[in-house]
Amino acid sequence: MSILTIERKVLEKNDELAAKNRKLFQHYGTFVLNIVSSPGSGKTSILERTLEHLKDRLCVAVIEGDVQTDFDAQRVAKFDVPVVQIVTNGGCHLDAKLVQDALTNIDLKGIQLLVIENVGNLVCPANYDLGEHIKVVVASTTEGDDKPLKYPAMFRNASVLLINKIDLIPYVNCNITELKNNALRINPALNVFETSCTTKQGIDLWCAWLEKQVKSMLS
Amino acid sequence: MSILTIERKVLEKNDELAAKNRKLFQHYGTFVLNIVSSPGSGKTSILERTLEHLKDRLCVAVIEGDVQTDFDAQRVAKFDVPVVQIVTNGGCHLDAKLVQDALTNIDLKGIQLLVIENVGNLVCPANYDLGEHIKVVVASTTEGDDKPLKYPAMFRNASVLLINKIDLIPYVNCNITELKNNALRINPALNVFETSCTTKQGIDLWCAWLEKQVKSMLS
Repeated sequence: MSILTIERKVLEKNDELAAKNRKLFQHYGTFVLNIVSSPGSGKTSILERTLEHLKDRLCVAVIEGDVQTDFDAQRVAKFDVPVVQIVTNGGCHLDAKLVQDALTNIDLKGIQLLVIENVGNLVCPANYDLGEHIKVVVASTTEGDDKPLKYPAMFRNASVLLINKIDLIPYVNCNITELKNNALRINPALNVFETSCTTKQGIDLWCAWLEKQVKSMLS
Repeated sequence: MSILTIERKVLEKNDELAAKNRKLFQHYGTFVLNIVSSPGSGKTSILERTLEHLKDRLCVAVIEGDVQTDFDAQRVAKFDVPVVQIVTNGGCHLDAKLVQDALTNIDLKGIQLLVIENVGNLVCPANYDLGEHIKVVVASTTEGDDKPLKYPAMFRNASVLLINKIDLIPYVNCNITELKNNALRINPALNVFETSCTTKQGIDLWCAWLEKQVKSMLS
């Protein structure tokens, strides 16, 4: 069986296309996030709160990835930013080719921040470079504190961890200190923010950090 | 590119092995569940509550699937039932071969119910038949009510939907009626139970239903 070889070839091809995407982003001075998480951790809600904060301060565009439906693109479109929906039709992750195709529908000129919301999946998207500058992993308090140890690749490859739904802590079985320590054991360089899209706790700190990254790339 | 053909071959090979597993389960009179969900929806907690209810009424064994760690097997082992942990080392789903291998470590003689807890992933495990009798999909109220429409394959292939963390409804943005309707639009034959592993709401109804299935297979 040559499955492993084929998989390696797929990943090599993906890395080539990701490098092309990265070059394009560099050319336009566009800082690119790849947001990953389990289904329902709050990626789209984080994006909505982030757009509220930053859309008058930065030029933002969005690529939405979903297995089915364009619900998330509809939610984002309300913020009056360019948005393209990729429907993977059962595919479990975005890849660099899908992003390349989506980019034909976005004029990157003047776009300072491009947010790519990946398919809700804490396993497969870890292996696929899209050409982004950083991966942001969202972990919801409702998922418990053991997820970094159980799904390490995603936490290892991310630069930022958003611990979301922090407002639900009184009602769920999740020790925040334990969750952070588990994540930092996997990846000591993680930037960790605690957020709630309901109370908006922590959104300002996250957005200030993000804006600084975008502007330091541009300067 | 022959990726699709290779993928079809992988699935065909998997279906052959799943048929062998199914024949083995039939031979021993073992009813088999494949529990699937996003990471952190409460599969292991559901299993713990189910074992509390049923372990004195049925002979149960468990196969745990995880990307990394044997935390879940340790939780289940406390109930003094045979349990085998499969660590996929990055693999995003269980397949029939992994289950076949795990079965070499379980004596199925006398086992009436085998529960296979899949890797936390709402996409990939949908395509891999393990030889189980039914798939049970767990959806947590914290994930919102749109997940059946966004990840339809899993809900289409399942026989049971457990809407878990029902106790968190006052604190989260999830309309239970909408969630049920969305699931039933994808799969009108779904048996739906509302559960909480914290308050134990609905666990009795789910376990009574499950026990009936097991016993009707044996009679």
